Amino acid sequence: MNALLLSNGAIRFISDYPRPVPLPGEALIRVLRAGICNTDLELQQGYKGFEGVPGHEFVGQVEMCETQPDLVGQRVVGEINISCGACPRCRSGMRTHCQERRVLGILQKDGAFAEYLTLPVENLHLIPDSISDARATFVEPLAACFEILEQVQIRPTSSVLVLGDGKLGLLAAQVMRLVGAHVTLQGRHAENLSIARDLGLETQTANHQGVGLSPDYDLVIECTGSAAGLEIARQLVRPRGTIILKSTVAPRASIDLAPFVVDEITVVGSRCGPFEPALRALAQQRISVAPLLGATYPLERGVAAFARAAEHGMLKVHLCLA
Amino acid sequence: MNALLLSNGAIRFISDYPRPVPLPGEALIRVLRAGICNTDLELQQGYKGFEGVPGHEFVGQVEMCETQPDLVGQRVVGEINISCGACPRCRSGMRTHCQERRVLGILQKDGAFAEYLTLPVENLHLIPDSISDARATFVEPLAACFEILEQVQIRPTSSVLVLGDGKLGLLAAQVMRLVGAHVTLQGRHAENLSIARDLGLETQTANHQGVGLSPDYDLVIECTGSAAGLEIARQLVRPRGTIILKSTVAPRASIDLAPFVVDEITVVGSRCGPFEPALRALAQQRISVAPLLGATYPLERGVAAFARAAEHGMLKVHLCLA
Repeated sequence: MNALLLSNGAIRFISDYPRPVPLPGEALIRVLRAGICNTDLELQQGYKGFEGVPGHEFVGQVEMCETQPDLVGQRVVGEINISCGACPRCRSGMRTHCQERRVLGILQKDGAFAEYLTLPVENLHLIPDSISDARATFVEPLAACFEILEQVQIRPTSSVLVLGDGKLGLLAAQVMRLVGAHVTLQGRHAENLSIARDLGLETQTANHQGVGLSPDYDLVIECTGSAAGLEIARQLVRPRGTIILKSTVAPRASIDLAPFVVDEITVVGSRCGPFEPALRALAQQRISVAPLLGATYPLERGVAAFARAAEHGMLKVHLCLA
Repeated sequence: MNALLLSNGAIRFISDYPRPVPLPGEALIRVLRAGICNTDLELQQGYKGFEGVPGHEFVGQVEMCETQPDLVGQRVVGEINISCGACPRCRSGMRTHCQERRVLGILQKDGAFAEYLTLPVENLHLIPDSISDARATFVEPLAACFEILEQVQIRPTSSVLVLGDGKLGLLAAQVMRLVGAHVTLQGRHAENLSIARDLGLETQTANHQGVGLSPDYDLVIECTGSAAGLEIARQLVRPRGTIILKSTVAPRASIDLAPFVVDEITVVGSRCGPFEPALRALAQQRISVAPLLGATYPLERGVAAFARAAEHGMLKVHLCLA
């Protein structure tokens, strides 16, 4: 089958990659569309040492499923962590932190930048007809933003700063304002900030140091995709405030820890989130994802798509296989 | 008066430092005993650029107090943050984070390594006769450990690792076990670990990398006093677990942030705490501080006391003026 292959830090298109064979309990899924995430760009830089087919944001059509044949022909999205279900972490309700997990397109499991992928049936969620392929491909990153609400309480009276006007920041800001909180999006890209304003978000242009005008936010959501983002967030959050750390970046960061102690800051790492709330929010039109789609490429032009996705301030790049 | 003076990164004893004059609302306090904290050693290394008389752990006797004359002759300890009471942070109940604050012996306010100090009356707490000078001097660092319980819920079923067997770790471990949690103290100093065991604490000897045998703690309290402590704590805490950051160190730390995101770790900076619970715990004999006192020096030998306090694994060093 056609696939994008990451090997030795280089991404390339190949047409003779073996089609995956579903294990018992898994479905074979024909990929309709897949999104390039910053994590994919980090994998390309050597993060996690992943080799194989990357890609973990997708919508597809079930082509084969022995355990649940009624799924065949259905459009689905899929949770990306493949858990054992038996280890202490799985049994304590932390399946996304399974000690034995494989992760679609990230860890020991080929991903979505290919004509086919396989996933356990329990990972799949049906997509209603009202949600297009393009919108459905945003379910995975949107779920990651809903994870923030699973971890900390956003109060209607909270002041929230989303740091970074990329695709993740534009999603996170929309999720943060769902409960009525005052949300500001800070970024450096005029075009993206303009999209944010069209979405009704308040915006702020980061100055040279990345520090805006109004510090003392209750909550800062770090979506810069940069190792420097945490210290910028720290300068903007109030004492006893909370920073949500969303960027997974490969390089180490140099950090002055003392101010985190002195100001009693809480930092919360945040990764994959629940799909159902993300699907509901999309179905109920409470989140706009269409303006976040920057470009669409066929799988054959995946190398160009990766290069495009890596441009500063670039919005979401999709690979379309349908 | 006699005092230890920190200037240009050097500590020295002088006998002709001017006696402080209490402002309206302040008491003049004769220092009976004061403790050397790791923060004092960091100040000596240039942390915060402090110049003046350091020292913020003390017990003293009120010598003069215009607004509350009945305090004269009483033994007191004092909270170290001097707040304005009027700024938004003070008005929202965060007086220790006052934007205009001065901090005894740390920030724009001479401290306790001198014959006299001044503090606002509202900062003072009376010491019952049952608590000796030596034990009372531990109220400030003990309060800082109780701050952890103000910030996060320690459950009776929590597994807690205290990282670092210094004076702060030995205090924190005792506070962490108050609610019945399973507490392990990990350190490198055989003598200190032996003291911990005498206190009934479970101990673990850190290996060369500082990483012990049993990861996946619910909570790790970082008391190493080292910039490397946070990454060691991260290797030992479970996914979605919490790290309490207690060390204030001057040097920047190099940190791989991605695992904090992937494992969804929460990091909570923790500084000064409430004095009343610390006083109650001491009065009710629920915390042992006597075994934590390593050496006592007269103020005149303060330079030697600082050198001693800086030795690896050294317990608490007191300056005795009574």
